[in-house]
Amino acid sequence: MKQKLSIVKIGGNLIEDPKELYYLLHLFSKIRGNKILVHGGGKKATEIGEALGIKSKMVDGRRITDAQSLDVAIMVYGGLVNKKIVAQLQALGVNSVGLSGADANIIKAYKRLVNEVDFGFVGDVEKVNTYSIFKILQAGLTPVFCALTHDGKGQLLNTNADTIASEIAIGMSNQFDTTLYYCFEKKGVLKDISNENSVIPFINSKKYERLLALKVINEGMLPKMHNCFNALRNQVSKVCIGDSSMFEEGYTNFTTITL
Amino acid sequence: MKQKLSIVKIGGNLIEDPKELYYLLHLFSKIRGNKILVHGGGKKATEIGEALGIKSKMVDGRRITDAQSLDVAIMVYGGLVNKKIVAQLQALGVNSVGLSGADANIIKAYKRLVNEVDFGFVGDVEKVNTYSIFKILQAGLTPVFCALTHDGKGQLLNTNADTIASEIAIGMSNQFDTTLYYCFEKKGVLKDISNENSVIPFINSKKYERLLALKVINEGMLPKMHNCFNALRNQVSKVCIGDSSMFEEGYTNFTTITL
Repeated sequence: MKQKLSIVKIGGNLIEDPKELYYLLHLFSKIRGNKILVHGGGKKATEIGEALGIKSKMVDGRRITDAQSLDVAIMVYGGLVNKKIVAQLQALGVNSVGLSGADANIIKAYKRLVNEVDFGFVGDVEKVNTYSIFKILQAGLTPVFCALTHDGKGQLLNTNADTIASEIAIGMSNQFDTTLYYCFEKKGVLKDISNENSVIPFINSKKYERLLALKVINEGMLPKMHNCFNALRNQVSKVCIGDSSMFEEGYTNFTTITL
Repeated sequence: MKQKLSIVKIGGNLIEDPKELYYLLHLFSKIRGNKILVHGGGKKATEIGEALGIKSKMVDGRRITDAQSLDVAIMVYGGLVNKKIVAQLQALGVNSVGLSGADANIIKAYKRLVNEVDFGFVGDVEKVNTYSIFKILQAGLTPVFCALTHDGKGQLLNTNADTIASEIAIGMSNQFDTTLYYCFEKKGVLKDISNENSVIPFINSKKYERLLALKVINEGMLPKMHNCFNALRNQVSKVCIGDSSMFEEGYTNFTTITL
């Protein structure tokens, strides 16, 4: 039987608010067995970027990563957010190690090809070096990944944290019974975006198609759902979406997604 | 016989200038056997701090690390400088992993006690977790340390990079035949600070005392020399001080220090 592995991606307001973050990290520290944390950068990168006079460029609502914005991402995701999480996890008794995709050559990516839009230093995942992750887990360490990858030629790249989490989950599923948790400020996938208590408890591919046809799934949730089903189609056992409470024992008010 | 371990600390202008840094990393990639890189942050932290409107506070010529300056150090040392070095080393074929002292709980420190001056979030090294470093080396990885430590209670601390290098060297010397390299823009310990060609090739404790009595050693060099002899008195085999060229084969114009 495969060993269990929990991959927890945290994002959004969770990272902004020190109390919320501490609550999540505390619950994360209680998860038994092998575990991996993946975090985004939240609004801190925008904040620091603005303070440095770097304007974020957007095309069709998507952020363009120029050289200066990449530097801010490296500072905030790879430095500030990552190292503070690691220090806090150490205090909670979790022997964590903060990593970018360049560290131990774990996530190789290629710079996104320029079609209509040049997204700049944005990387699409090429390969997850699961052997390195396995060695790190085996050494009793808990990896904490930020949303940076590299191209193997010396260039760091900005990569979506949801995608990093699902790609790592897919890579590790050969060896582990993997559950992927998307943890943010909402209670799960909502039937009615304006009603926090309308969490859909279970979704499978059939139900997902129905929900799509009924246009129930909020647009902002679509890329996340795409990542979920991509992971599930590639051996990941289960995906859960919800807020930090989903790691409380007995709590059930979140969304579980299976194939 | 003990295996060899090279610990290379780089600082000063070396980090500022991309070409100089690339030259050093290229030479570092050629060093055979186990190796560890330790880097400072250079002027980049001051630059970013100033751009963010954070004034560095100095007392008696020593920098005070308040909460804001610490955040800058975490961003610049732990993020920008560290991850860029790791990405470049990967491109040079060195499977490196960027670490702070919080990662894998490698360097625990205590916040410097307040006597006359409160230095703020500055850490003095309490313990180097050599077992974790050993496991990382054994996994075929090359650690790249930035100048951050942690107190084990969730607080990151700013620690002098020279000291981190010598403390790691001391810790590892039980198991390895360790050489510590202090690599910066000068050619070595100079007899005459205004003459780059006055490198003193060999120094031992006796000669050091003579040089001190003659006031030959430049004041800025004294803390480095203190670190050197502290390392040598604690099993480190040899300390070398010089510029990047000291890693070129056959090059001899640098300072070697033994007990």
